[in-house]
Amino acid sequence: MSYDPDNIFARILRGEIPCHKVYEDEHTLAFMDIMPQSDGHTLVVPKAQGANIFDIPADALAAAVRTTQHVARAVRKAFDPPGIMITQLNGAPAGQSVFHLHFHVIPRYEGQSMRVHAGRMGDPEVLAGHAARIRACLE
Amino acid sequence: MSYDPDNIFARILRGEIPCHKVYEDEHTLAFMDIMPQSDGHTLVVPKAQGANIFDIPADALAAAVRTTQHVARAVRKAFDPPGIMITQLNGAPAGQSVFHLHFHVIPRYEGQSMRVHAGRMGDPEVLAGHAARIRACLE
Repeated sequence: MSYDPDNIFARILRGEIPCHKVYEDEHTLAFMDIMPQSDGHTLVVPKAQGANIFDIPADALAAAVRTTQHVARAVRKAFDPPGIMITQLNGAPAGQSVFHLHFHVIPRYEGQSMRVHAGRMGDPEVLAGHAARIRACLE
Repeated sequence: MSYDPDNIFARILRGEIPCHKVYEDEHTLAFMDIMPQSDGHTLVVPKAQGANIFDIPADALAAAVRTTQHVARAVRKAFDPPGIMITQLNGAPAGQSVFHLHFHVIPRYEGQSMRVHAGRMGDPEVLAGHAARIRACLE
């Protein structure tokens, strides 16, 4: 599909709108999902443009998954969830709502179902605190 | 967590038990999930040992995601689903049932919910046909 350069993640990458940043390097950016499905829900995006896994250059995809691993380790250390689900959704019928490729890092806690995505906004102060907690656990 | 070298994917990689193979290269193997959540549900595993995203070497993870992209493109061509969900589950509370890192490539069809994983075995002949259909679409 065609890439819309004004999608929300492209605007975050350009610094036009803020995010609760967790990690950044030359090729990728990680930040808190503002509608978290569980505490610690973090997103990883490549800086390269691509709406989905079909369109993204392979090197950018590989960079994104390396950052996903780096961030997932920090999320585990910060929140100690018994499980972490990594998802990467392609197409609205698969649940994709922002058309810039991204990986979700979603902690799963025992006996707690995930909140519905896009259900409600997270509290900005709580999200800022979670971002700081994960950043402190990056190695 | 410690890696059990007798998990089912390790045994498939050693050729001790069969699979409906879709793709193989030096670092990865892709084959049909025998309990598919939708038609075309394919798994990608690195040949390197690692129970989950925390334990797998970064290069092996990157190789697995590259193969996931390669296979996802073929699945899209073979089945033309409007969406494809990529998942990588870590820990039983996140839904992981085989403790060798793997990516799921799960087609999503409009108005059709996913079947419950591990709900029932797929028909072997159907799976063999699906594997052939995806292989024919690899580029």
